[in-house]
Amino acid sequence: MCSVYVDGVRVTKFEKSGSDLKSLLVEAGRKALATSKYPEPQAIFIGAMNPEEFTGSGNIATLTADALGLLGIPSIRVETASSSGAAVFSVAYTAVASGIFKNVLVIAGEKMTHLPIAKATRILAEVIEIQEREAGASMPALAAMITQAYMRRHKISHEGMEKVLSTIATKNHFNGSLNPLAQFQKRITLEDYKKSKFVAEPLRLYDCSPITDGAAALILTREKTDIRVVGIGQGTDTLGLRQRDSLTSFMATRIAAKQAYEMAGIGPKDINFAEVHDAFTSFEIINSEDLGFFEEGMGWEAVEDGVTHIDGQFPINPSGGLKSRGHPVGATGLAQVVESVWQMRGEVDPKRQVGKVDRALTHSIGGLGNNNFVIILEKNNDNIKPAQRKSFYTLPIQIPRSADRDDAGIDGKEGILETFTVLHVPPEGFPSPLILGFVQIDGKRRVLARAMFLGKYRLGERVKLERDGNSYFFRKVTFLEKVKYYLRQLVRSEKGFKKSPNSWLK
Amino acid sequence: MCSVYVDGVRVTKFEKSGSDLKSLLVEAGRKALATSKYPEPQAIFIGAMNPEEFTGSGNIATLTADALGLLGIPSIRVETASSSGAAVFSVAYTAVASGIFKNVLVIAGEKMTHLPIAKATRILAEVIEIQEREAGASMPALAAMITQAYMRRHKISHEGMEKVLSTIATKNHFNGSLNPLAQFQKRITLEDYKKSKFVAEPLRLYDCSPITDGAAALILTREKTDIRVVGIGQGTDTLGLRQRDSLTSFMATRIAAKQAYEMAGIGPKDINFAEVHDAFTSFEIINSEDLGFFEEGMGWEAVEDGVTHIDGQFPINPSGGLKSRGHPVGATGLAQVVESVWQMRGEVDPKRQVGKVDRALTHSIGGLGNNNFVIILEKNNDNIKPAQRKSFYTLPIQIPRSADRDDAGIDGKEGILETFTVLHVPPEGFPSPLILGFVQIDGKRRVLARAMFLGKYRLGERVKLERDGNSYFFRKVTFLEKVKYYLRQLVRSEKGFKKSPNSWLK
Repeated sequence: MCSVYVDGVRVTKFEKSGSDLKSLLVEAGRKALATSKYPEPQAIFIGAMNPEEFTGSGNIATLTADALGLLGIPSIRVETASSSGAAVFSVAYTAVASGIFKNVLVIAGEKMTHLPIAKATRILAEVIEIQEREAGASMPALAAMITQAYMRRHKISHEGMEKVLSTIATKNHFNGSLNPLAQFQKRITLEDYKKSKFVAEPLRLYDCSPITDGAAALILTREKTDIRVVGIGQGTDTLGLRQRDSLTSFMATRIAAKQAYEMAGIGPKDINFAEVHDAFTSFEIINSEDLGFFEEGMGWEAVEDGVTHIDGQFPINPSGGLKSRGHPVGATGLAQVVESVWQMRGEVDPKRQVGKVDRALTHSIGGLGNNNFVIILEKNNDNIKPAQRKSFYTLPIQIPRSADRDDAGIDGKEGILETFTVLHVPPEGFPSPLILGFVQIDGKRRVLARAMFLGKYRLGERVKLERDGNSYFFRKVTFLEKVKYYLRQLVRSEKGFKKSPNSWLK
Repeated sequence: MCSVYVDGVRVTKFEKSGSDLKSLLVEAGRKALATSKYPEPQAIFIGAMNPEEFTGSGNIATLTADALGLLGIPSIRVETASSSGAAVFSVAYTAVASGIFKNVLVIAGEKMTHLPIAKATRILAEVIEIQEREAGASMPALAAMITQAYMRRHKISHEGMEKVLSTIATKNHFNGSLNPLAQFQKRITLEDYKKSKFVAEPLRLYDCSPITDGAAALILTREKTDIRVVGIGQGTDTLGLRQRDSLTSFMATRIAAKQAYEMAGIGPKDINFAEVHDAFTSFEIINSEDLGFFEEGMGWEAVEDGVTHIDGQFPINPSGGLKSRGHPVGATGLAQVVESVWQMRGEVDPKRQVGKVDRALTHSIGGLGNNNFVIILEKNNDNIKPAQRKSFYTLPIQIPRSADRDDAGIDGKEGILETFTVLHVPPEGFPSPLILGFVQIDGKRRVLARAMFLGKYRLGERVKLERDGNSYFFRKVTFLEKVKYYLRQLVRSEKGFKKSPNSWLK
């Protein structure tokens, strides 16, 4: 297998742009080629999530090759939802590693801001599993429920979580203020954060990455440059959150990280800084744990301690992250690599420079954490002890999964409200606010349901499920149902039955 | 570079299916794995053209991995419009050739028939260059104009062309009648053909491939099997037809074929049969010339002589082709490979078996001939003299292209009606019938325009262009304009000016 190196790199300004998608891709591609020793690529690889619906035109691979004046050469588009920018890097990597191409141009981008927000949100929601989508789930709603599940699991109060999330938001906005290509260059204060509206509780507007236009590009080559690609990993997970074992960790990230570390022959401690997928502020915490930078349940404390700040021990998202640099969905995974290369080459504003970087890691999430990538780059100099690399991807870690995935017999069951959110910007056709929650039944099955009534719900409380057509609704259990439940439990324990390990009585 | 072999293969029945896209992909994938010695793939590659718009759901790579129960492993989607099935084969090939993966599962599919035809047609038309699309071009309209250009260039009469096209249609329907997995298993007669309605003159309904649901799958592996992938080539061309040098040949096919033959170290004469992209019957002729099976301008005679029939010297599309097997756009490029493997293994109905096959070629077109692939497979046995293979793709052939691509100063110009069609099923918002033509001006620039008036037009006649907003219209030149033109030509030739080589007076 050939070694693969990164040559010229570039991102466009991330912003609400007047240019169309083709022009953004061409701008990034041309500028990357202009800084490269290999300006005549043998193939083009394009990453984009959904140009057809965002722009009304398809055939983006040919369109871009044609517009770049690189007519005739192969051009292929790659897609894995919001990690398409990392996926196209991975595909281009194998094309060079195979020895088939010497130099290839990799471009990724998306054009989104010209659409009404409701339409853009609808298009983005097409990656959500169909039953959860039909129950009213949007990306922020699912992210909010993951955030609440994290709070419940690690016993973090609302005030405590607000402090942590606001710290991430202000940190990333601060970093973005030092990045002239970031969408937002405005620092925000704790007060700004607290004033921003709830999108899906506990997530506010300042917890969510924006809708953005932009593109990134780079040249991958078999010729030795100063930066080598040493690790790539990819993992997938169930589309539906209700079928996952954990709501507080992304298995797909863990698989991808394991592969990338093993391929590079290193561990999390060997990385100097990371660009991670903070589509929502709380994801930055979960990612930092899944990637092995902090132990499970410790990521939020690291944020509080300032470890992930630009001048901390382990900077995360010096670019501003998705939160502040912006999130043109198809572009993001590749823009992270460009930021890493610039940091490694010392080509960013000294105020944003995280110090000397020998190894950088990027992490990109596709969909709601179901198609994730980890990429590791290394400075190609003699001072770095070459790691014990493996030639091949290792097989993924053993996947635990519930065999029982059907919804039979859920109607009328009682269960635990494992996590929920009050969604203030629901999808079209749903009332606002919309309360959505994952209800766990039988200690293993989980279903996404709507609250039958508005009101205050408590994480972990007991609720009853009712079906209406294809949708499930939940309501608080009545006093009588509570009494019945306690009596049943009593009888069971008298009989020596083992309690369900996930029971709220535990 | 590792050698790459094909193991288990499968296509679903191509038809108007009651299954959704996920189920079709899973069916093809499961059945391919069931016939494979390597049922535990390390990665999945999915080809699909536009699942987001055809089905309303995205994230198809994860969705398929999840539904297959192959959770955790990498899954990536690849797209190049209607050649996505070949593109995903090519990407999976490099992933195995690189040594990164040992065995991968490749699946390609599309689900289209559940949509109203007008909507499916609109989605398909998104691959057309924007100005040509706005002028009213549909895929059949552009194909019809290519057909007329071919007739004009090779001096084929309408009657002659009708005979050739009907021969291809009846041949492919005959082949499809022998293929239990084909969409149409009904043989058609010359009379049926002549009775079928014009879609875009001279193309009738029986000249156009149908709208279809279906999926194909196969396993690529580094382990030696009976069939080796020996050549892959890909070429691109301008999105717009008006910027191409030739309307009677696809440069993208020629580039792809050159690469594939050179990689395999063989030529067209070493191929036993081919599956080519007959989205329109006339394309089968053009493809057979671009692939080097027949000389330019001789492909139509080969059809007349029966050379390409199932029992001819060089069978083309024994599966029934896109015409009769059906054309689920994303699946087609991979289904061609499956047919080739079945033919090479002697696993088709003896009536459809083209004889002993040592080498087969497949050819897939993306968009209107702008992102094309050629794949060559070889029987892996000792009787075949190994060819002098090249390890690497060669650079594409030198691309001739006009530097002048803008439309400045076209308004009011006179030009030649290079080719035209009467479109009987125009896109929404256009009147029926709609006459569209490519008008060539200054001997090199070409513009797609609408006829100002209905009526009879002649290939090669002189017309005048007028602009209205972003659209161009053409009309016959008046008697006075004709006189003026002749006088100008006379003065020029008196002065010894060289006549434009493309002038209709030549």
